[in-house]
Amino acid sequence: MSNTLSSNAHIDESLRAKVYWWLERPDRNAFGPKLLEIILIALIILNVSAVIIETVDSIYQSWKFAFDLFETTSLCIFICEYLLRLWVAPENPNSQSRMSWVRSPVAIIDLLAILPALLYLLIPIDLRILRAFRMLRLLKLTRYSPALSMLLAVFEEEAGAFFASFFILMLMLIFAASGAWLAEHTVQPDAFGSIPSAMWWAVATLTTVGYGDVTPITIAGKKFGALITVIGIGMAALPAGIIASGLNEQIHRRRSSMQREFRKALEDGMICEQEEEDIEALRKQLGISSRAADHIRESVYAEMKAKIGITCPHCGKPLDHESSNT
Amino acid sequence: MSNTLSSNAHIDESLRAKVYWWLERPDRNAFGPKLLEIILIALIILNVSAVIIETVDSIYQSWKFAFDLFETTSLCIFICEYLLRLWVAPENPNSQSRMSWVRSPVAIIDLLAILPALLYLLIPIDLRILRAFRMLRLLKLTRYSPALSMLLAVFEEEAGAFFASFFILMLMLIFAASGAWLAEHTVQPDAFGSIPSAMWWAVATLTTVGYGDVTPITIAGKKFGALITVIGIGMAALPAGIIASGLNEQIHRRRSSMQREFRKALEDGMICEQEEEDIEALRKQLGISSRAADHIRESVYAEMKAKIGITCPHCGKPLDHESSNT
Amino acid sequence: MSNTLSSNAHIDESLRAKVYWWLERPDRNAFGPKLLEIILIALIILNVSAVIIETVDSIYQSWKFAFDLFETTSLCIFICEYLLRLWVAPENPNSQSRMSWVRSPVAIIDLLAILPALLYLLIPIDLRILRAFRMLRLLKLTRYSPALSMLLAVFEEEAGAFFASFFILMLMLIFAASGAWLAEHTVQPDAFGSIPSAMWWAVATLTTVGYGDVTPITIAGKKFGALITVIGIGMAALPAGIIASGLNEQIHRRRSSMQREFRKALEDGMICEQEEEDIEALRKQLGISSRAADHIRESVYAEMKAKIGITCPHCGKPLDHESSNT
Amino acid sequence: MSNTLSSNAHIDESLRAKVYWWLERPDRNAFGPKLLEIILIALIILNVSAVIIETVDSIYQSWKFAFDLFETTSLCIFICEYLLRLWVAPENPNSQSRMSWVRSPVAIIDLLAILPALLYLLIPIDLRILRAFRMLRLLKLTRYSPALSMLLAVFEEEAGAFFASFFILMLMLIFAASGAWLAEHTVQPDAFGSIPSAMWWAVATLTTVGYGDVTPITIAGKKFGALITVIGIGMAALPAGIIASGLNEQIHRRRSSMQREFRKALEDGMICEQEEEDIEALRKQLGISSRAADHIRESVYAEMKAKIGITCPHCGKPLDHESSNT
Repeated sequence: MSNTLSSNAHIDESLRAKVYWWLERPDRNAFGPKLLEIILIALIILNVSAVIIETVDSIYQSWKFAFDLFETTSLCIFICEYLLRLWVAPENPNSQSRMSWVRSPVAIIDLLAILPALLYLLIPIDLRILRAFRMLRLLKLTRYSPALSMLLAVFEEEAGAFFASFFILMLMLIFAASGAWLAEHTVQPDAFGSIPSAMWWAVATLTTVGYGDVTPITIAGKKFGALITVIGIGMAALPAGIIASGLNEQIHRRRSSMQREFRKALEDGMICEQEEEDIEALRKQLGISSRAADHIRESVYAEMKAKIGITCPHCGKPLDHESSNT
Repeated sequence: MSNTLSSNAHIDESLRAKVYWWLERPDRNAFGPKLLEIILIALIILNVSAVIIETVDSIYQSWKFAFDLFETTSLCIFICEYLLRLWVAPENPNSQSRMSWVRSPVAIIDLLAILPALLYLLIPIDLRILRAFRMLRLLKLTRYSPALSMLLAVFEEEAGAFFASFFILMLMLIFAASGAWLAEHTVQPDAFGSIPSAMWWAVATLTTVGYGDVTPITIAGKKFGALITVIGIGMAALPAGIIASGLNEQIHRRRSSMQREFRKALEDGMICEQEEEDIEALRKQLGISSRAADHIRESVYAEMKAKIGITCPHCGKPLDHESSNT
Repeated sequence: MSNTLSSNAHIDESLRAKVYWWLERPDRNAFGPKLLEIILIALIILNVSAVIIETVDSIYQSWKFAFDLFETTSLCIFICEYLLRLWVAPENPNSQSRMSWVRSPVAIIDLLAILPALLYLLIPIDLRILRAFRMLRLLKLTRYSPALSMLLAVFEEEAGAFFASFFILMLMLIFAASGAWLAEHTVQPDAFGSIPSAMWWAVATLTTVGYGDVTPITIAGKKFGALITVIGIGMAALPAGIIASGLNEQIHRRRSSMQREFRKALEDGMICEQEEEDIEALRKQLGISSRAADHIRESVYAEMKAKIGITCPHCGKPLDHESSNT
Repeated sequence: MSNTLSSNAHIDESLRAKVYWWLERPDRNAFGPKLLEIILIALIILNVSAVIIETVDSIYQSWKFAFDLFETTSLCIFICEYLLRLWVAPENPNSQSRMSWVRSPVAIIDLLAILPALLYLLIPIDLRILRAFRMLRLLKLTRYSPALSMLLAVFEEEAGAFFASFFILMLMLIFAASGAWLAEHTVQPDAFGSIPSAMWWAVATLTTVGYGDVTPITIAGKKFGALITVIGIGMAALPAGIIASGLNEQIHRRRSSMQREFRKALEDGMICEQEEEDIEALRKQLGISSRAADHIRESVYAEMKAKIGITCPHCGKPLDHESSNT
């Protein structure tokens, strides 16, 4: 893409590699990239806080200029960040093409963070709606949370069970609204006059929010409401149960990946420095706490020790690795 | 049933097999059956949406003819679908009898979707009740969700624990209503005048819905209410916990079935194309995500490698049983 | 206790054994004991229903005589039942003493079911309180639910974690009430005038019931309320999580007991009829569904098969049981 | 620190050791230390109860002197306790320095329990705020609950997942408040006039508390509210799911530690008295119920038996490794 001049390209690429290293590899523990990351996170949080505070009219009127200046400044920074990340995308060892970066979820979130404000320069959107869209900048924080990526993996993995539980919830909502409409529509035509309006009560009830602004008042409505609430109690909590179960599975699977790595490293009887570093990198990538990693290591050692005790049935000598190295 | 003429039966059966293939085997990835499935799903969703919107009187009055026409049309389609499915039922390799299909849950749901409307032609039922029954067509969607079948299996499996948790909930509801009635019946004769009427408060409280239309106002009532709420908090969430635990178990069991299949296929050292297809079919049948299946495959490979790869370091002979047989 | 005359004792004991068999062993599938059990369960349910309906004054006034007659009759039956169970207690092969039966939980529940009504004959208690105590007869149903016993075992097992989670909930309730009292006591002296009265709000909030009869109205109160609610959300659901986790553990443990039984039975290569019966009895006792039992059986078979493939390292012959029987 | 005179130091240390034994080792089952522990727990509970009751003005006015006396007395005792624990800290075999004790969580809680009252002597703080701080004495109870320590370990372990779920909750709260503000700010300027004020509704809704003091009334607001509630239902229950999953993991890990201990003890074929004591100590330290420990013991025995008991059916030699070494 930028190989017009060999020597220039060389300088350019070396600068690009540096920028890539600063922007996308803050885990290498250098001070500079770490600081940049903290500044970017702080900017996102400040930006969202500003949007929240701006909606308090009295504050916005007094500090209008400051708020607008801060918005313009941070918008510029976010645009620069997007362009820089786009520029350095080919440095990524896993996917060298810029297009694949543009299509990645993080890049889409980055674009969403700047697009509404840019559109505003072209089309005069309502300022309030624009503010609501500026809230999407919050999603930029997802890049920096390793545990969040695990949760997202769980959502992806359990998508089928999730869809099923939402489908059941939808079924129950429709049945609840239908029943309440049947029982209450003559007495409370405002709140239960049609199934769509009865849906507000159904949602508030089955999610156990229970505002109480609308409640059944007929005997039949109360009986039906009580029944559907008792049945619905298990359904509404299903998504949480599915996530918990999925998280469990995910953690288990990651730990068994870790375990396999430990076993591989221990095949020659000891873990050398290079292997130690690889394991540490894998541990961070999988988001496993160092305490859990220690536990896995311990169990693999115990397992290896048990194996060492086993002797070869052909020659009767013990199968420990120390002796096989000699 | 239709073996009157041998040659005719042959043609007939071949047509029947084709219809069966179109209606009941949309997983073979052919374009036609896939399209038919999508049309049927869309029809169900449109139908239920129509019932929901019909209950908004103003809309129904303006579009009465269109709604009635749509209902009549879709009723005809559902009747045709039922008759066709009944006709092709003997093609099912697992159960060749039509009676066994009629008694299956999906067939009963299909019947429930058309019966109320057919009855309406004979007996003049209230139109509103009829609409509520037309909602049952939603259940026809269950046929198309593989994850839903897993949830239903969990309900069936954990029926005992479910019954127990509902029994405890029922006990707690009765005790809560009795206590509140004892404390509040003199001060609030309307809401707590008898145990059945106090039950409305008990349900709203123990399911944590908490409308707030009825709350205890005496000191004794508030003390009792607080106590029963704190105790009840664990009980009400039990069904969700049981489902989560059951789902976990179910997923675990299905994965171990998958694992056994992989092991069997790998016994001869490699997975041939036929075995690959069988595994894929099993994976779809068990509703396991392809990512999870890959993980299982990987772990079985690792296990196999460990079994085959170990050799005695003293005499160099492999420790797998193939060699020890010789 | 009744060994005054040898021959008489023999007859007496044979009758006692018969009564014991009828009353305490309804799982032997005989028609008589099964019917007796159903009658007793029906009587309990009818009795509790009667107490619930009695509290509706208008119904009680019209049917006073019938209600009182039914109560007297069922009280007599419950007294007879208690005395009969006490009489046949020595027939229990596990604990032959009557005292140990009297001290068992089921016996205490049976006593609680008759004691308040008996006391009423001596001391004139308030009729309403008496009714509330008659509700305790519901607990007699626990005898007949195998799944319930599993849940109770979970409660017993996880008592420590339960106590801890209730302790945390108590801490949070006290802190929530203290904070709300501090923020709101000047503005809402009725609802937040003291920590005990603020507790009503704290319970309704942290259990997510949220009646809404009392809510913070100051800015400080709302901020504190929002904070404590968000933090408290995880705490309040802890007991449910603990039960779910405990149930999982319990089921796992019971299944491994079952597995061990299968392995023991399969040690000689096959399951004889006697072993089959023992396994079935254990399955019922542990409350494992027959489907789950089949799964365990299958996995044990697979495990055994895998073992059979292993050959003896001393003589090289395969270690399958069929050959060792010959 | 106190080694100025050798002989004096000897006496001093022996007294210090005794005090240490009384204060910090009540698990040795001696009557004295047990009693002291019960007295201290009772004092904490009485103290907190006093603070709660004090806030009821009428009671406080009548018993002012008694309350103040009790507060002064218990403050003195807590100060003495703190100083004594500080004095005996070097006796702790794991960390002999006083500074490390001062920095430990229990010591900080102990300090928090006395500091506010001491500060009050210097600076005249509002009495009501002081009372709220005296509530912190409740935290002193954490020292005495072994199960609580397990829960805290789970929080520590799952901190990443917790942070992630709170981050998601925060995202959803901000989005919910933004949407409700957009939809409702013109109709309900009081409750939804700005995003911060709409946050009160968002918290009450997403935590499913649902007071109902503020609810959306526009069609758009209700639609958005229903949508965000249905989506949010899984998110809000996430922390509970994470704790449950973490607890499961924690219990599993502790049991496998126990299992390893059993296996080690059984290596020589039997568990001697010393090993039995060590196992019991470990069991208490890990907070495992004696029933669960028995189950682990049983499974280890079964495993050992299986290892030792298998003999080759052809040559009769045992298949354990001891024999293959000869």
